Amino acid sequence: MKLGDTGESRRQIQVMANLLGANDVQAEVNRRHFHRHNCLAVNIIGSPGAGKTTLLERTLTALAADCRIAVIEGDIYTSKDAERIARLDIPVIQVNTGGGCHLDSQMVGKVLPQFTWPGPELLIIENVGNLVCPADFDLGEALKIVVLSVVEGDDKPAKYPVIFRNSQAVVLNKMDLLPFTETDLAAMKRDIFAINPEIVVFEVSCRTGEGLAVWQDWLRQLIRKYQGGAVFPSS
Amino acid sequence: MKLGDTGESRRQIQVMANLLGANDVQAEVNRRHFHRHNCLAVNIIGSPGAGKTTLLERTLTALAADCRIAVIEGDIYTSKDAERIARLDIPVIQVNTGGGCHLDSQMVGKVLPQFTWPGPELLIIENVGNLVCPADFDLGEALKIVVLSVVEGDDKPAKYPVIFRNSQAVVLNKMDLLPFTETDLAAMKRDIFAINPEIVVFEVSCRTGEGLAVWQDWLRQLIRKYQGGAVFPSS
Repeated sequence: MKLGDTGESRRQIQVMANLLGANDVQAEVNRRHFHRHNCLAVNIIGSPGAGKTTLLERTLTALAADCRIAVIEGDIYTSKDAERIARLDIPVIQVNTGGGCHLDSQMVGKVLPQFTWPGPELLIIENVGNLVCPADFDLGEALKIVVLSVVEGDDKPAKYPVIFRNSQAVVLNKMDLLPFTETDLAAMKRDIFAINPEIVVFEVSCRTGEGLAVWQDWLRQLIRKYQGGAVFPSS
Repeated sequence: MKLGDTGESRRQIQVMANLLGANDVQAEVNRRHFHRHNCLAVNIIGSPGAGKTTLLERTLTALAADCRIAVIEGDIYTSKDAERIARLDIPVIQVNTGGGCHLDSQMVGKVLPQFTWPGPELLIIENVGNLVCPADFDLGEALKIVVLSVVEGDDKPAKYPVIFRNSQAVVLNKMDLLPFTETDLAAMKRDIFAINPEIVVFEVSCRTGEGLAVWQDWLRQLIRKYQGGAVFPSS
């Protein structure tokens, strides 16, 4: 939600700076809350239709036997995604931004008391479908994860670098459709690693199940590490 | 780029209102400029990877014999899309938002003198890949057109209604991939028409060429109508 440099006054840029400052303060409050309650908070970001909610459906059912999970669903107006998660019998809270293009730390902090604490060992926060604005707003999470559909094209990491720079993992989804696209997967991954050499890349298809076990195991290990007191990049 | 209701002060909301007000003033200046020079300006909006630039490549080559065309390419940092358009020998100006998630009317107004006027009869403005924020910013265009890939899923119109409400047409792209998705095309179109009964829907595949002739003919007719003095919804 950063303002462009063109045509806006310094005052407006200052307001954005204040807004981000206020966001960071509350993000720190959220982060301490998660830490105190041994809860690994993960911020899931991606374009509309990248497959974020479907990835959660496929992931949370697999992980539910291992740990306590809860979800915060960010959406502009509807509760469509929250209803999909609720069908899995996983505690979910809907946050509607009422036109806003991203979640902020205050929206998240406000609903945390609605869960019982100590509560989830894994809290998934699914952001509004948007590859630009959510990248700038720390929610207090331990990890940011980008979901990118390979159908979106191999130029997307270079065009939207901030979210790839700020994330710890990228899930390349809809791999089953790759043969029917012009996407050059090797070029896509080369760009991702050029932006962020430390990022972990998963290649999955939520439709066929391809690659999901590897991704789920990685997440399971992270939950265990966090329970064991490991500190993560965003913490 | 609307701010959410939660956790921001009235002052910040007021600044947004002022920002939109200033945008509308310059949008009107742009609109009069286009009108004076008989130039149909079209604002193209869609998620990252919906296929906006590919649609332009396929469309502009077909229309270049009929009329003078120019393009403004909005992008956060790169000039990747502008380079693709330049390869077609069509005049193109790159506008980088420097982190900003949408074009505004001032960014567009600022670069208009770089074209020769009277100049293009059709000016395509490709917005930043984002289904949320660009919907709120009038650039002075005659028409807004949404590009939506059917791979994004049938729930997208209901989840991002503003852009469908504010647009005159929607191009449903990547129709060749429909059989490999769970997308219910009838449900997608039902939701689109529920939001905007007047909207024109095209079903195309830029990869196979399916449906492109119908879409191009519609655009050709609009250019003729505009040259004949027709007033469009956004004007």
